[in-house]
Amino acid sequence: MSNCNLKSLFEPQNIAIIGASHNPDKIGYQIVENIVKGEFQGNIYPINPKGGKVAGVSAFSSIHEVLDEIDIAIITIPAVHVFDAVKSCTMKHVKNTIIITSGFSEIGNNSEEKRIVNLARENNMRVLGPNVFGIYSSKVKLNATFGPKDIKLGNVSIITQSGAIGIAMTGKTKTENIGLSSIISVGNKSDIDEIDLLEYLIDDDETQTILMYIEGIKGGSKLVNTFERAARKKPIVVIKSGRSARGAMAAASHTGSLAGADEVFNDIIKQCGIIRAETIEEALDWCKFLSNAPLPKGENTVIITNGGGIGVLAADACEKYGITLYDDTKLLEKNFSGVVPNFGSTKNPIDLTGAATANDYDKALSTALKNNNIDSVICLGCETAVFDADEFTSTVEKQFEAYKNSKPVVFSIFGGEAIENSISKLRKGSTPIFSDVYDAVACLGALSQYSCNIKKTKKEEAIPEINTQAIQEIINNVKSDNRHFLLAKEAQAIMNIVDIKIPKSYVAKNIDEAIKFAELIGYPLVMKVVSKDIIHKSDSGGIALNLENKTEVIEAFESIINNCKNYKPDAHIEGIEIAEMVHSGIETIVGARVDPSFGPTVMFGLGGVYVEVMKDVSFRAFPLNKDAISGMISEIKSYPLLLGVRGDEKKDIEEVANTILKIGSILYSCPDISDIEVNPLIVYDQGKGVKAVDIRIILASET
Amino acid sequence: MSNCNLKSLFEPQNIAIIGASHNPDKIGYQIVENIVKGEFQGNIYPINPKGGKVAGVSAFSSIHEVLDEIDIAIITIPAVHVFDAVKSCTMKHVKNTIIITSGFSEIGNNSEEKRIVNLARENNMRVLGPNVFGIYSSKVKLNATFGPKDIKLGNVSIITQSGAIGIAMTGKTKTENIGLSSIISVGNKSDIDEIDLLEYLIDDDETQTILMYIEGIKGGSKLVNTFERAARKKPIVVIKSGRSARGAMAAASHTGSLAGADEVFNDIIKQCGIIRAETIEEALDWCKFLSNAPLPKGENTVIITNGGGIGVLAADACEKYGITLYDDTKLLEKNFSGVVPNFGSTKNPIDLTGAATANDYDKALSTALKNNNIDSVICLGCETAVFDADEFTSTVEKQFEAYKNSKPVVFSIFGGEAIENSISKLRKGSTPIFSDVYDAVACLGALSQYSCNIKKTKKEEAIPEINTQAIQEIINNVKSDNRHFLLAKEAQAIMNIVDIKIPKSYVAKNIDEAIKFAELIGYPLVMKVVSKDIIHKSDSGGIALNLENKTEVIEAFESIINNCKNYKPDAHIEGIEIAEMVHSGIETIVGARVDPSFGPTVMFGLGGVYVEVMKDVSFRAFPLNKDAISGMISEIKSYPLLLGVRGDEKKDIEEVANTILKIGSILYSCPDISDIEVNPLIVYDQGKGVKAVDIRIILASET
Repeated sequence: MSNCNLKSLFEPQNIAIIGASHNPDKIGYQIVENIVKGEFQGNIYPINPKGGKVAGVSAFSSIHEVLDEIDIAIITIPAVHVFDAVKSCTMKHVKNTIIITSGFSEIGNNSEEKRIVNLARENNMRVLGPNVFGIYSSKVKLNATFGPKDIKLGNVSIITQSGAIGIAMTGKTKTENIGLSSIISVGNKSDIDEIDLLEYLIDDDETQTILMYIEGIKGGSKLVNTFERAARKKPIVVIKSGRSARGAMAAASHTGSLAGADEVFNDIIKQCGIIRAETIEEALDWCKFLSNAPLPKGENTVIITNGGGIGVLAADACEKYGITLYDDTKLLEKNFSGVVPNFGSTKNPIDLTGAATANDYDKALSTALKNNNIDSVICLGCETAVFDADEFTSTVEKQFEAYKNSKPVVFSIFGGEAIENSISKLRKGSTPIFSDVYDAVACLGALSQYSCNIKKTKKEEAIPEINTQAIQEIINNVKSDNRHFLLAKEAQAIMNIVDIKIPKSYVAKNIDEAIKFAELIGYPLVMKVVSKDIIHKSDSGGIALNLENKTEVIEAFESIINNCKNYKPDAHIEGIEIAEMVHSGIETIVGARVDPSFGPTVMFGLGGVYVEVMKDVSFRAFPLNKDAISGMISEIKSYPLLLGVRGDEKKDIEEVANTILKIGSILYSCPDISDIEVNPLIVYDQGKGVKAVDIRIILASET
Repeated sequence: MSNCNLKSLFEPQNIAIIGASHNPDKIGYQIVENIVKGEFQGNIYPINPKGGKVAGVSAFSSIHEVLDEIDIAIITIPAVHVFDAVKSCTMKHVKNTIIITSGFSEIGNNSEEKRIVNLARENNMRVLGPNVFGIYSSKVKLNATFGPKDIKLGNVSIITQSGAIGIAMTGKTKTENIGLSSIISVGNKSDIDEIDLLEYLIDDDETQTILMYIEGIKGGSKLVNTFERAARKKPIVVIKSGRSARGAMAAASHTGSLAGADEVFNDIIKQCGIIRAETIEEALDWCKFLSNAPLPKGENTVIITNGGGIGVLAADACEKYGITLYDDTKLLEKNFSGVVPNFGSTKNPIDLTGAATANDYDKALSTALKNNNIDSVICLGCETAVFDADEFTSTVEKQFEAYKNSKPVVFSIFGGEAIENSISKLRKGSTPIFSDVYDAVACLGALSQYSCNIKKTKKEEAIPEINTQAIQEIINNVKSDNRHFLLAKEAQAIMNIVDIKIPKSYVAKNIDEAIKFAELIGYPLVMKVVSKDIIHKSDSGGIALNLENKTEVIEAFESIINNCKNYKPDAHIEGIEIAEMVHSGIETIVGARVDPSFGPTVMFGLGGVYVEVMKDVSFRAFPLNKDAISGMISEIKSYPLLLGVRGDEKKDIEEVANTILKIGSILYSCPDISDIEVNPLIVYDQGKGVKAVDIRIILASET
C-alpha cells in the first residue's frame, strides 16, 4: 500500500524463481520457460535445491548463491513453505516478490498471509499476490507468467483480480490483435494493489490505455485520488463483476446500506472519469479502439449508410451511448448532395441507398472525413446485391489510413461470408470494424466519455470551515454514554453548529413554558410527548397537530398529559415538545457515509417514501467542489421537480448544494462519524432555503 | 389486410416474372436465376417482350401467353409501368403479385401505390410490397429474391421491413449456420402486412421460430390478437428500430403523447408474449437457440465454471436476463461434492477451479444434465494453463448430443486461438456456444421468456357493461357544440355513469345555495369561481381553501365575488363551485388512448408531478382481464407505495384495477373517444376506494 515506486517490478534487471522446476507440467517450469522464450532482457536465476538446468537456464540451489541484486523473486512453492522463502528473500534484500502460490486469504487463511506481508514490509520488500499468475512487462520483454507465451507488443495495460480471466484475456488479445504493454495479476492484493500499479502506469509512456477487471476494491480517498489522476492522463476501462445482487453474493462482496454498493461504485468511478464496460468483450473492443483513435475535436457525428434500417439502428445506438448526431441540415445538404443519389438522404444518417458502390462510399467518406465541421464518422454497410466486399475493404483501408490519426471513425458491415472475411481482414489491422452496429457505436461512446472527462477543468475542492471542536464535544458525550448513535437533540445540535436549518422546537415542562415556546416559534405548531417509556406516540394520543393559537396549545398540553397517563400510568413524562409545523416542500435526502471502497462519500436523492421505492439517488466521493455537487444534484431523475414543473417555482438548489457540502464536511472532518442521513431534507422555493427534518448520525464502531 | 389464406404465396405452383431481363446485372435477371438455382419445384415463366431465354428458362412475351394459372407474378419493371403490369395480372386472375420496384409511398408517392392496391383488391389479388426484395419459402424451394443464392434450409422464418437488412441477415444466417423456412420482405406493406404473414406462419409446421425486423407497425386490436396467438404457438423475436428519440426521428415514426411510443411498443409486445432483441446479432443468436432448444421443465439453473470471475459475471448476467439460479445448497453439495476439488465450490456457481480438465467438465456436466432438480445449465470455461480446447470440445459435443433434446444448456468459453477454433467448430453444429458470457445467458433468457409466456393460462377478457347510450348522449352534445374536448362537468358526468368516484361539487348561484351545498357535501370545503372570463382563478382571488364551517363559507362567497369584480370588472360570473376538499392519498394516473399501432390501450402510473418527471408508467392493449390489469399495476416501480411502505396501510389496489377496467371500457365501447386521462386518481387505504380528481376526455378527429 505504500507509495514507493514500482520501477523495479516493471523494469527488473535480475529475476529469481524460487520453485523453478524440471518438470514441464509444473508452473515452476512454465514461468521460467515463458521468461526465456519471451527474451527477457535481464538475468534469470532459477532456484532449485537440486541445481541443474530449468528450461535451458542453470539453476542455483539457493537464492543466497546468486551474486547479483535481485529485483523480483517469484515464488511458486507450496503455501506452507512460502513464509520461509519470503524470509530468505528479505535476507537477500530482494526488492519485490511475486507469490504465485494460492491457499491464503482467498480460502480464509488470512493469518499466514498477514504474517508474510508484515515480514516483507519490515524489510521494505513489496509483495505482488499471493494467488496470481505473474506479471508481463513489455519494457524489458518480461513474461513472468504461466499464461500464453507470445504476447503481442502494444500499449494496453491489463490489471486483473481474477487469474483465470486474466490468462484468458491475454489469449484473447492475441486473436483480437490487441498489443499489450503490461499485464498484472493482483490476486489477493496483500500488499501491491491497483493504486500502486496505477501510480506507476500513469507515467508509463508505453501504456496508453488501461483495462481493469475488479471484483472488490479498497483504498478510500487515496483510491479516488489515484483513479482521478490516472483517468485524466489516459483512458481507463473497468469491468466490475458482482453488479447484481446475486452476483455480489457470489463474489461475497460488501454491500451498501441504502442502494447496493454497485450503484456507489458506478457513480464514483464515473466521477473519477473511468469508463465502465459490462462485458469482457466490450472492454477489449474499447481498449483497442481507445489506444489507437485520435480525440474528436467536437461532438458532431455523421452516420454514412447504404440502408435506412441500419441507419436508424445506429441512431438508436448513438442515443444509448451518448453520441451527438450533427444536425446542420443545410451544411449537410451542401456537402453531401453531390454524393447522395436520388431517393437517398443528405440528412444525418446520410443514406447512400442500397445501390451504393465502393466508389460512392469513397466519396462520402472523404467528404465527411475532410470536413472540419464533422468531428467523428460512423460508416455502415448492409450486404446488398451491388455491395462488393473486396472493393469496400480497399476503400475503408485507404480512407482509414489517411484519416486515422486526425478523426475518429468506426465501421460496421453486416452480411454473409464475404462480409465476415472483410471484417476479419480489416480487424487484423487496427481498423475498428464490427458486425454489429451497436458494437461500433459503443467504441465511439467510450472515446466520447474519455474526451469529455479530460476536457473538464479540475477545480479544487473547498471544504468549508466548521467548528469540529464543538461537534467533537457532542460526540465525546455520546461515546462516554457508550452509544454509537446520536439522539435527535444531539444531531440537531450538530446541525445548529454548521448552520443547517432545522424545525424550531423546545421541550416544555409545564403549561407556562409551553405557551412561552409557542409564542417564540409562532403558529401553526405541533406538540409531542417526550418520554422514553412511550414508543408509539401517536397510539398513546401523545401528538397534537396544527395548533393555531394559545387556547389550542393549552388544551393540547392537558389532553396529551391525560392521554399518556391513561395509556401508560407509570410512564415518566419528561415534557412536551413544542415544534414548528414544517411547511410542505420537495422532500429530498442527503447522506454521507464512509464507504468501504472509496472512503467518505455523499449521497443525494428524492426523499420521503420515494427514496425507498424509486432509489433515485446519486453518489459522490467527498471532498467535492460546488460544480461537482451541482452535477450530482442534477443527475437524479427527479431533478425537474427542483427546477419546478407545471409552473412551480424553482427550488432552492443552492441551499441543497450547501447542505450536501456541510454534511459531507462533517463526516470528512470528524473521523468518529461513519454515517449521517438527513431524510427528509425539505426544499423550498429559491431563496427560501431548506429544512432538515429528521437527522440520524452514527459513529464508527472501533474495529 | 384481409385475412384470406396466403398458401398460394408461400406454396406457389407457377410463378411469372414481369421484367425478366437478359442482363445478369439486372434484378429482373437475378430473381429468375435465384429461382432456377434454388431448384424451385413449380414452373417458372419469365415475361419479356423480346422472348428468348432468361437464366436458361424460355421467356414469354406477355403474361397472357402463359396457359397455366399464375400463383405469383413478380414485378421488377420501373415504377411508371407497374400499374399497367398489375392490371394485366388482374386480367389473368393472378393470385399474388410481388412488387419489387421502389419509388412509391416510401418517397411520398402514395397515390400511385393506393391506385395499384385498390385495383388489386377489386380483383381479389394480394400484393406484397412495393419496395421489397422478394420472398423465400422452403416448402417449395422457392428463392424469389435478389439476395443470396444458397439459403440454408431450416425452421426460422424472417419477416423484414428493411430490404437491406433482410438481404444482409440472409447472408449472415448462412455464416451463422441458421436454417430458414422462409424470408418475407414486406417493404411498404401496401396490402400484405405482418398480420397476414403471421396468420400463415402460425400453422406452418416448417416454421418453429419467427424473427421480425420492424420500423413501424399498424393493425390495432387485430395486430394484438395475432401477435398473442402467434406467440403462444412459437417463439417470436422482434427488433424494432427507432427506439430512441433520434432514432424515431430518423425513422420518421409516430410518437406517443406522454411517453415515447417506444415504451408503448415495448410494454404491449411483452404483453403479447413477444421477445424483444436490441441488436440484429442477438436476435439471430436467440432465434437459432430457440428453434433448437427444448423447453426447460422449471426455472432452476446451474452454472458450472472453472473460474470464479466468469462465474460472478454469469450470475450478473442471470439477474439481467431473468434467470433463476438454483439455491438448494444441500442438494448441490450432495450431487457435486464428488466432482468439485478442494478449494472449489459446490455452491452455485459450481466452481471446478482453474485446474479443471475436460474430464472434470464431463463429470460435472453429466451430473447437472441428468439431475431432475436442475432445469437448465450454463457451462463456462476460461482458457487456463490446463484447459485443453480440443478435449473440451469433444466433451461438449458428447454431453450436448446426449441431452440437447431434454434440457436447455448454453456454453461460453473465453481465451485465445484454440478457444476461438473450438467455438467455430461447435457453432457449425447447433451447439449454443459463445465467447461472451452475457451472450450465452441472454439465449437462456429468451427461452425463459417464451417458456413463461406459454405457461400463462389465457383468461378471457371481460368488458364490464357500461351505459354507452348515456355516454353517447353527452358526446353528441359535445359534437353538436363543435368541440373535440369535454368540459370538466361532462367528463365528470361520464365518471358518474360508470360509477367512478369523483369529488362532490356543485355550482352555487347565491349564498343560500352555497350554504345548502356546503351542508350537503360536509366540511372541509373548497370554493372556486366559475367564469369563462377568469382563466387564472388563483391570481384573481377566486379560490378559497379549507373552509370549515358555515360562517367561513359565507365569508368566502362574498370575498370571492369582490375579488373577481376588482380583478376583472366586466367578467361574467356564472357562480361559485362548492367542492369537497380531497383528502391526500397516493396520486396515480390512469389513461386510455387509441394507439396508432395497437388500437385501444390503457396506461397506469405514478401520478401528479411525478408522472412527468419519473415516467413510471405501464401500458397494455385493451381489452384486458383482471389478472392482466393486476400485472400492469404491479409492474410500475412505485408499486410498493400501493402495497404500503414504512408501515403505511395497503392501498385500494382492487379499486385502481376497477378504474382501469372502466376507463378502458369507455374508450373501447365509444369509438368517438380517442383519449381519456384521469390525473390524479387519488388512491386511499384498502376498502376506502379511489377518487378521480381531474379528468380529460378528447374525441377522435375525423380524418
